[in-house]
Amino acid sequence: MLNHKGKKYVCHLDLGMDFIRGKWKAVIMCHLNEGPKRFLELQRITCGVSQKVLNEKLTELEKDGLIFKTAYPEVPPRVEYELTDMGKELFPALDILQKWSVKHFSNL
Amino acid sequence: MLNHKGKKYVCHLDLGMDFIRGKWKAVIMCHLNEGPKRFLELQRITCGVSQKVLNEKLTELEKDGLIFKTAYPEVPPRVEYELTDMGKELFPALDILQKWSVKHFSNL
Repeated sequence: MLNHKGKKYVCHLDLGMDFIRGKWKAVIMCHLNEGPKRFLELQRITCGVSQKVLNEKLTELEKDGLIFKTAYPEVPPRVEYELTDMGKELFPALDILQKWSVKHFSNL
Repeated sequence: MLNHKGKKYVCHLDLGMDFIRGKWKAVIMCHLNEGPKRFLELQRITCGVSQKVLNEKLTELEKDGLIFKTAYPEVPPRVEYELTDMGKELFPALDILQKWSVKHFSNL
């Protein structure tokens, strides 16, 4: 049994899965793999997930070290989100999942 | 937006992720990749998840076409669970997640 940040995991896979658990994190990371994105772009890409939920997921991904944000001193202010190296390392797993899904459910 | 079995998905990755969502499915599949396992073996490996929950997850994985079970006509009856070809195709993604987790959190 592993302990990490007050939570218990049965193995490293269980822990790894927790970083991308839920409906949005994997989808957000997959889009950030294409390059830096602004909040509104991410909201559009995720088909209108609420501002509150998107903000929550981005904050969690940032705290977990999978993404980082850069605030550019412009008017109006510009904030962009990017994958960290640790985040980029997870992309191949998401890519396999996506291609698997396309292969088996291309008719949807 | 994709529709599958009455649920909506923003993209194929979102759909693919849904097949291994939750705490147990990925862990179960990872162990089944080593070879067929009986219910009690899986319960032991998953550190004592309740019989009800394990049964629920196995039934969902079977309905989704990721695993199948074989009942051997023995006394006492023997039932073994295995990955289908479709299930085996997901293993490389789980393997990346597991190795990523070991790499970054080997100290736990």
